[in-house]
Amino acid sequence: MMTESPLRLGIAGLGTVGGSVVELLQSQKEILRQRCARPLEIRAVSARDARRSRGVSLQGMEWVEDAVALAHRDDIDVVVELIGGADGVAFDLCRSALEAGKHVVTANKAMLARHGFELAQLAEHRNRALAFEAAVAGGIPIVKALREGAAANSVESVTGILNGTCNYILTTMAKTGAPFADVLAEAQQLGYAEADPGFDIDGWDTAHKLTILASIAFGVRPAFQSISVEGIRFIRAEDVRAASELGFTIKLLGVARMDRSGISQRVYPCLVPLRSPISHVDGVHNAIEFSGDYIGQVMIQGRGAGGGPTASAVAADLVDIANGRLSTTFGQPATALAEARPMDGQASEGHYYLRFLLHEQTGAVARLAAVLSKHGVSIRTLVQKDESQSGDVPLYLTTHRCAESAMRAALAEVQASSDLAAPPMLLRIEYF
Amino acid sequence: MMTESPLRLGIAGLGTVGGSVVELLQSQKEILRQRCARPLEIRAVSARDARRSRGVSLQGMEWVEDAVALAHRDDIDVVVELIGGADGVAFDLCRSALEAGKHVVTANKAMLARHGFELAQLAEHRNRALAFEAAVAGGIPIVKALREGAAANSVESVTGILNGTCNYILTTMAKTGAPFADVLAEAQQLGYAEADPGFDIDGWDTAHKLTILASIAFGVRPAFQSISVEGIRFIRAEDVRAASELGFTIKLLGVARMDRSGISQRVYPCLVPLRSPISHVDGVHNAIEFSGDYIGQVMIQGRGAGGGPTASAVAADLVDIANGRLSTTFGQPATALAEARPMDGQASEGHYYLRFLLHEQTGAVARLAAVLSKHGVSIRTLVQKDESQSGDVPLYLTTHRCAESAMRAALAEVQASSDLAAPPMLLRIEYF
Repeated sequence: MMTESPLRLGIAGLGTVGGSVVELLQSQKEILRQRCARPLEIRAVSARDARRSRGVSLQGMEWVEDAVALAHRDDIDVVVELIGGADGVAFDLCRSALEAGKHVVTANKAMLARHGFELAQLAEHRNRALAFEAAVAGGIPIVKALREGAAANSVESVTGILNGTCNYILTTMAKTGAPFADVLAEAQQLGYAEADPGFDIDGWDTAHKLTILASIAFGVRPAFQSISVEGIRFIRAEDVRAASELGFTIKLLGVARMDRSGISQRVYPCLVPLRSPISHVDGVHNAIEFSGDYIGQVMIQGRGAGGGPTASAVAADLVDIANGRLSTTFGQPATALAEARPMDGQASEGHYYLRFLLHEQTGAVARLAAVLSKHGVSIRTLVQKDESQSGDVPLYLTTHRCAESAMRAALAEVQASSDLAAPPMLLRIEYF
Repeated sequence: MMTESPLRLGIAGLGTVGGSVVELLQSQKEILRQRCARPLEIRAVSARDARRSRGVSLQGMEWVEDAVALAHRDDIDVVVELIGGADGVAFDLCRSALEAGKHVVTANKAMLARHGFELAQLAEHRNRALAFEAAVAGGIPIVKALREGAAANSVESVTGILNGTCNYILTTMAKTGAPFADVLAEAQQLGYAEADPGFDIDGWDTAHKLTILASIAFGVRPAFQSISVEGIRFIRAEDVRAASELGFTIKLLGVARMDRSGISQRVYPCLVPLRSPISHVDGVHNAIEFSGDYIGQVMIQGRGAGGGPTASAVAADLVDIANGRLSTTFGQPATALAEARPMDGQASEGHYYLRFLLHEQTGAVARLAAVLSKHGVSIRTLVQKDESQSGDVPLYLTTHRCAESAMRAALAEVQASSDLAAPPMLLRIEYF
């Protein structure tokens, strides 16, 4: 409608996402004109290297050397932070911008997971937006769905495939039977994995995103420090194959749950049944499932990364601000966000997958089963393979529901046994 | 936060959804207090029968005989219309309420599909919300996802499993092999289908919802009159079985697409590949998939009906209003909504499934293939069954991509042939 003054933007960071945001705001001008009460106008940009070609025109935008200076300009209403990194310039810029009474739109999950509570307080104190749809799962509007769409619910759980790199690797392992290291190398060649892949494959990226989702879902302060994180480095081709034979596929999940005792936040690779919708979320796609007491179970999936989807999410936040649709940062006032109390770990229960390598000795399987049984761990399915060249016998099994503490105790006893040719491997099974 | 005056509600209609909304607003009081800038307060209710027990307390709410009177009360800010029906009291109430400067929240898809444009103009003229998350797919926040989450995109298509009754029937047919009529009767006994099932199984309910989604996706006025609608009455157990053998499942889809020539809106049963995520959306669940130029493909699924999910959606709209988060009705100003121009039908292309019943005559299959080929219809897979008791031969096939006009011409010629023992049956195949 364009009857009002423009919403003036300062964009910090012109990498893949920043470049895509500039490109989107230019090429979708017509669409945005219809959908915004105020025009969106880029006043200034800042990035490390002014000379790099980005394939977009920066005409009419002022180039600012020091990104943090964007926070103090009178001609900017919204700072769009696309620099990245939990601390440093990104955090300085966002903090300064909110203190100066500007809206902030960011894709910075690491910063939100670590400093989200402090930033939310700053934003709400001045009634400004701290918007971050792009920080979780790229273009998928999961922040909006959870914070606004499920606002009338007590949310019980949020679970997601939140890292495309890991999902690509696990999907490819399942498809080709290739070992982890080979698939990782291929993913690096294709640009799906970084040269230093630890941030993705060790689960940290998933943990950042899960922290943010859990905060919105449960109304607690982001509690990154209390999250338990396992990555996918130790998943073997034989686990992927055995899972498939048992009716499962392996996914790296972020899982947050709430009960009366508190909140559990964990990142781990686990088996999901092949008949569950989430098991079909393949390749670089992301998916998030949440459950609320009225809404029931909702699942959203789509492209969780890349310039286009992420720019779409940044722009959606800008449209909201231009239309005066503000929200508290995590769905309720920061002052009302409780400290996340950890769930009573003793009470944790689950279904499990186990891989053993046994010496070929009479009665080894029976002895193993007896130890599990003694601790209350009951076997559901068991596959014994005749495939080892060494004379040792690989054994894969799934269990019925049991206490995690019982499982740990049983494994401790099994590990002391002379039947074992290698340390056992344990994965959770998540039913959806 | 509760620093402001309450948002005063008048609720019209206390059936399953209305009762659930009252119940939700009472039992989620604590949650809503955290998430709303203003408390939600039910001032008055209206329903046909004041004496019926609804299992919820109506204490403190005024009972109003004439629902339309809610529109004229000074002590009401939002009218919540849960009566239903495209016209009559529901439409009178919503129109009067918007004219009187009140916000309207409704679950009424039939009314929006037919009168959405008129109501949107009224709402925007007075800067009031006409909110309807509950009108499409129950608790699934698809309206919000499309209107706000994808706001920066040119949306190319919206496709959905939008009717739980049809999806339950088709899923059960696939699972049990039972014929349509038996499964429908069972669904009626279970309460999943109405005594008069036509509205659901003939595709009208899906058509209403698709009209609304297409309006938001493409920025056009709701164009219910131009939608093409086929239901699922003519789907046979043998089609479901053949589809499965060919690697597909049958779903009733609402499909809206836009290209440069215009917009296509269709409701039809069709085959979707078993490896597509939407093929795994079973039973009474709903799912919506949309594609935008930046966001890519997004799919959302969940519970598309029932008191709880629908009440969750109504309450989400109320939370938005209480927090001052207003939107134009269909994502852009009603005055800017274009007339929906129908897509050039000649240009329509697709993959198809065909069922034939041939007399057992030498060369019948070859003659059929020749006719198809003559019109440019190329066979992809073909299954010939030896199962008919009559001596006639059932034949199922899928085609490569071809023009719809070519397919229609080929079928017209085939139907004139003496090889056919029964009229052929044609379904589209949709790849996701």
